[in-house]
Amino acid sequence: MPRSWTSSPDVHLGIDVAPGRGKRRALEQALRDAIHAARLGPGTLLPSSRGLAADLGLSRGTVVEAYAQLQSEGYLVTRPGGSTAVAEAGPVPAESAHSTQRRATEAPAPPGPSYRFDLRPGLLDLSRAFPRRQWMASVRSVLNQAPDAGFDYGDPRGRPELRRALSRYLARARGVVADPEQIVICLGFAHGLSLLTQALGRTGRTTWAMEDPCLPAHPEIARRAGVDVVPLPVDGSGARPSALAKLGADVAVVTPAHQYPTGVTLQPERRAELLAWARATDGVVVEDDYDGEFRYDRQPVGALQGLGPDHVVYAGTTSKTIAPGLRIGWLVLPARLLDPVVDLNRTALGGALPPALEQLALTDFIERGSLDRHLRSLRAEFRRRRDRLVAALSKAAPDLHTTGVAAGLHVLIDLADSGLTERVVADAAAAEGVGVAVLGTHWHGRTRTRRRPSQALVVGYARPTPPQFDNAVRALVRALRSAPG
Amino acid sequence: MPRSWTSSPDVHLGIDVAPGRGKRRALEQALRDAIHAARLGPGTLLPSSRGLAADLGLSRGTVVEAYAQLQSEGYLVTRPGGSTAVAEAGPVPAESAHSTQRRATEAPAPPGPSYRFDLRPGLLDLSRAFPRRQWMASVRSVLNQAPDAGFDYGDPRGRPELRRALSRYLARARGVVADPEQIVICLGFAHGLSLLTQALGRTGRTTWAMEDPCLPAHPEIARRAGVDVVPLPVDGSGARPSALAKLGADVAVVTPAHQYPTGVTLQPERRAELLAWARATDGVVVEDDYDGEFRYDRQPVGALQGLGPDHVVYAGTTSKTIAPGLRIGWLVLPARLLDPVVDLNRTALGGALPPALEQLALTDFIERGSLDRHLRSLRAEFRRRRDRLVAALSKAAPDLHTTGVAAGLHVLIDLADSGLTERVVADAAAAEGVGVAVLGTHWHGRTRTRRRPSQALVVGYARPTPPQFDNAVRALVRALRSAPG
Repeated sequence: MPRSWTSSPDVHLGIDVAPGRGKRRALEQALRDAIHAARLGPGTLLPSSRGLAADLGLSRGTVVEAYAQLQSEGYLVTRPGGSTAVAEAGPVPAESAHSTQRRATEAPAPPGPSYRFDLRPGLLDLSRAFPRRQWMASVRSVLNQAPDAGFDYGDPRGRPELRRALSRYLARARGVVADPEQIVICLGFAHGLSLLTQALGRTGRTTWAMEDPCLPAHPEIARRAGVDVVPLPVDGSGARPSALAKLGADVAVVTPAHQYPTGVTLQPERRAELLAWARATDGVVVEDDYDGEFRYDRQPVGALQGLGPDHVVYAGTTSKTIAPGLRIGWLVLPARLLDPVVDLNRTALGGALPPALEQLALTDFIERGSLDRHLRSLRAEFRRRRDRLVAALSKAAPDLHTTGVAAGLHVLIDLADSGLTERVVADAAAAEGVGVAVLGTHWHGRTRTRRRPSQALVVGYARPTPPQFDNAVRALVRALRSAPG
Repeated sequence: MPRSWTSSPDVHLGIDVAPGRGKRRALEQALRDAIHAARLGPGTLLPSSRGLAADLGLSRGTVVEAYAQLQSEGYLVTRPGGSTAVAEAGPVPAESAHSTQRRATEAPAPPGPSYRFDLRPGLLDLSRAFPRRQWMASVRSVLNQAPDAGFDYGDPRGRPELRRALSRYLARARGVVADPEQIVICLGFAHGLSLLTQALGRTGRTTWAMEDPCLPAHPEIARRAGVDVVPLPVDGSGARPSALAKLGADVAVVTPAHQYPTGVTLQPERRAELLAWARATDGVVVEDDYDGEFRYDRQPVGALQGLGPDHVVYAGTTSKTIAPGLRIGWLVLPARLLDPVVDLNRTALGGALPPALEQLALTDFIERGSLDRHLRSLRAEFRRRRDRLVAALSKAAPDLHTTGVAAGLHVLIDLADSGLTERVVADAAAAEGVGVAVLGTHWHGRTRTRRRPSQALVVGYARPTPPQFDNAVRALVRALRSAPG
């Protein structure tokens, strides 16, 4: 049943409450649409939640929640006095607009030993995550139906069918403004990062700020690809864009949905600040949305890219949602960066793309709804694991502070108040057969902010099989108790 | 039934005549094995064909043919007076050794218009070439049977299962000495070339000689990847290695089995000369074996790599044998080049590899014999097409010289004696709805050897479907007749 509201002076906010979709989500989508289309311009004052609820025949709580969600995504701001307005750093007017759900990026292969209980971050239980039967159905469908031309040389950006399917999916699930023409298929986040560092590096963007701490493989890729990497500090509100000017950065790589490894969500004022920096300096923000599909306690925070599609490269992959071995990722590029990236990949880099069959199978997997069903099922499983891990930790070690629990596939266990060092605890864990990561290996610069936990474990909960999981948590708890303090 | 011959002084040449394999091929394999293992050292005189035939209970013709085959591959030489000996530039002693058959590399995507009859080279009839049913069987087998770890992050060189299968296949089919540890899976020849130019470029090998003429995409990739490209002249015996010293080349990229686009096979003395250059200068030869699987009139010429595995990078792909959209290729690397290539791909290049599922499906496809059956069938089809094309041309235009017909998926029609220019004929062909390539676009340097055909068409016969093919040939013949001379 369509409902509508006309703002002062003349904005029509059509809300299409489709069957099976929540009213709150419909309202959010309508607001985002209006902001993207500049029908609600920067600074526009919105009605009070009570007033809008009455206008649209919705409960007031629905409107309050929708406003809160869009504030957390940076679309709206709360004015002194409590009124709600469209943020000044709103998005560039864009073709289309969107809603939210989730999607994930990639942490490259942790090499090294195998553990009886593997709680290292960035790894998946592939018995659970890789949906072989459904994937087979998509492969079969493609081999039965795709035309011969589907398996020939093709567009250097990747199959158009997949780019169209991703455009719709990313808009719906992550609030990404993604013209299919501006999507480039790649082989995972690490490969996408390599493409970007080389292509943007050749256009003179040679100073890259990367969050400190971050996944160590990423600064290594960037440095080896020939750019300078400088450390972007992270605190309890996420990356600190105020540091970028001093760093002389041309590009900033961030993980807004769930900072890796601290688990912090980039706060709305930081989102605005980051985009303001990009607009003022012609800087580029690379959004590594590595585990954006996994948010447990409330609606996921939409992608930063939706707020600034002309300044943000959005990067995603199936490595955290299906299997790293799938080797499919995607970059959503601002129009002016499309040619440098595609041209470099087509020539100097030899046209590295995933196989046509895999691209078309993923298209089918998205379009027949398999990906949505798969993610719902995974999210339920990983939420259960997260709950058990957090409960076990707070019972066994109530003095430890566990952060980053609202989303993703890992938590950070801050050891600061325990008197324990991360190395001692990791060794005790290894003695129990448990593999964990330590925060210490994630620093790449000299950033030492006051707020950062000096000693912490990075604990993933997506790798063990269901029968292993509870034993893995018990072994970790034993290790925490037995570690010499 | 095993047969054996002991050479003077003490080489035992065991010949295993397996059921279903020819005696000649068995003898060739045994000779290659003995040469690789240095049991037959450089210069060793072989028995006369009559003597060896009597010793082994084979017909003399079998021995004569085996000797001729190994001469064409550069393993053996004919001495003045007619005796046969192991070549001086024999291979470095190697782990294992091998026989012959065929296999193919890649010419990147010809962009551009679509024709009613597409006779451009480098393209496949995918209704014929891509074996959907058998590929599906391999995918199903992998999804049913492969362990979860098969779909995780993995070895940066590619799946070990595929590297082992390729090692056996390449040894058997192309005479390649391929330790699975020294194979790196990539995404096709263009991608492999990019990897090599970047990795070897960083080790100081920055002057790359590429055959002139060659596929235009290849010098472009190399230049864009940051190396200097110099033109390696080609004549009726293939590339001319004597030019390399003057060119100051560090690397030479060649197409020994069937030079692209002239179709010449690199002659034995040139093979020896090329390897001598590499050994003397620590140069690297890159062997682009793009259509080595397709040889019609006699046994295929084995890969150059078998003669000098420490100095030759062998590169192959499925783009000419299954489908370009498969995006799987491989590099067989000398041991000292392995680390630079793998390390660069793992870091700066972001770990570009084909998906695990595709790699494992190809493994299954090779190991269950599907690839061999597929190639036999394709070879019969393409031989038939080649015969019809050549017959039609010689009937319609007996004054034109058509070369490169013994192998591959294209021929060169030399227009030199006809008074026609390639541009005029290509335009006449386009007017008949026929797409062809012209030799002129394949030059990248200033090489103008006396022997090169100044005006020629490059005509592929693998693209039309079977019902289209005869019509395509007729249309080409009409164009040749109607071109204003």
